Formats: sequence, C-alpha cells, structure tokens
Amino acid sequence: MSAGPMSKGGGVTAEFSGRHVLAEFGGVDSALCDDLARLESALRTALTGAGVTLCEMVSKQFEPYGVTVLALLAESHASLHTYPESGDIFVDVFTCGAAADSAVTVAELLRDALGPREVRISTVHRGRAPGSPPA
Amino acid sequence: MSAGPMSKGGGVTAEFSGRHVLAEFGGVDSALCDDLARLESALRTALTGAGVTLCEMVSKQFEPYGVTVLALLAESHASLHTYPESGDIFVDVFTCGAAADSAVTVAELLRDALGPREVRISTVHRGRAPGSPPA
Repeated sequence: MSAGPMSKGGGVTAEFSGRHVLAEFGGVDSALCDDLARLESALRTALTGAGVTLCEMVSKQFEPYGVTVLALLAESHASLHTYPESGDIFVDVFTCGAAADSAVTVAELLRDALGPREVRISTVHRGRAPGSPPA
Repeated sequence: MSAGPMSKGGGVTAEFSGRHVLAEFGGVDSALCDDLARLESALRTALTGAGVTLCEMVSKQFEPYGVTVLALLAESHASLHTYPESGDIFVDVFTCGAAADSAVTVAELLRDALGPREVRISTVHRGRAPGSPPA
C-alpha cells in the first residue's frame, strides 16, 4: 500500500541522521492498554503536539488482548505495543533530519497521556553527525 | 485503521520482553533505495524467511526521493527508511516474546537482499528478562 508523494523530513536533501527513542512504560491502566481507539488518539495527539507530520497510521487489536499502533511519519515512524495483562507498553519513536529532537517530545507527551507508574526512556543517536560526508 | 483479531506473538500470555535490532546500511544502490516495490518485496521476503508473521505493510514514496516501509507484525514491527541521495538505509526490527531472536535474522536477510557495502547492526534487549515478574 502506498500513499502519495510528499517531502521527507521537510528538506530537499535529507541528512542520514536521527534520534531513536526507545521507551518502556509500566503500571499503565489495563483497560487503556487494550483500548485501540484511545491509544491511537494518544499517539496522534503526541505527534501533533511535538510538531511532527503523520502520514498514515495502522493498528491492530490482538486476541486475547494487546494492541499495536504504528505511525508512518514524514520524519520516520513511531510505534506502541501494549501488554494489558501486565500494564506494560513498548514505545519507539524515530525522527530524522531537522526534526530529530521531536522524538523525545513525542515520548514525553505519550507518557503524560498514558499515565504510567514506571518509565524508562533511552535515546539512540543514529546515522552520521549532521554535516558529515557520506561514507 | 484496524485489522481483525489474531494472537500476538503466538502465545496467550505474552512476555514483556523483546529484541530491538537497529541497523544502518550504507553504500546501497541508489535506484534500489528509491524503488518502493523492491523494498517492500525485500522486507516481505526477509520477514517470511525469518518465520515472523506479517499482519500489514504500509509504505510511502517521498519527494524528491526516499521511501519508508513499515510492517506491523504479530511479533511487533519492522521498518525501512531510505536515503537514495547517499545510498543509506535505516532499518529497525522489533520482535517480542518467543520470536525475539528472529529480529536479527530479519536484519541479516535484508542485508543479503539489499547488498550494502557498509553494515552496522546493534541489538537492544528490551522489557523484562523472560520469566521475571511484572514490575
């Protein structure tokens, strides 16, 4: 499946550089962890709040429980994978180019929306440092 | 958008545990980096070869160039973000539960299919160690 053309990351020549935020939320309300509509809405709101561009969102309700939400962004992607049985959520947000800092903001806005009791957020710097030549 | 119910990761009680593979491929053929159909096919073949379950794939052709492919898996997700101008590709593959080892296999099969001159693959162990109690 493919959507129409648009500019990636807002620039004509994109830097091969980005931030990949890997977050784990624990102690989240179990009903919220299994509520696809609320999880989609929370991710959409966090993305908008961080100023990144959502191109497409896909999600899936698993049986007996658990939800995955994936967002295709102009800046790369974001995802949620939930475990209602234990109240846990895996989050990842990858943003490239000039919007790289937005990944942390998305994770923080998601944390505020989902109300976890425990939070782990780590950031991986990926690609080349901005301005460095191709390999 | 939502697809129908299915079991997540093949088990009734999913472990909050997984492997997140972050890979960077450099020196990839520029035409391949901008060929959405071939990139989708390469990812689909790698996922199948690694034995993971593809639920849905979404992709986008950016202007003036660059492709993103996202795969929603029963085991979590996989993504490609390409930079035809420099021949670079960001890859991530996240697999949870019993299929955790498959993430590395997916990345290796993608490497073989895309023929990069430079490869960096790192693996992040996420969540709790299998068998440990919820936080």
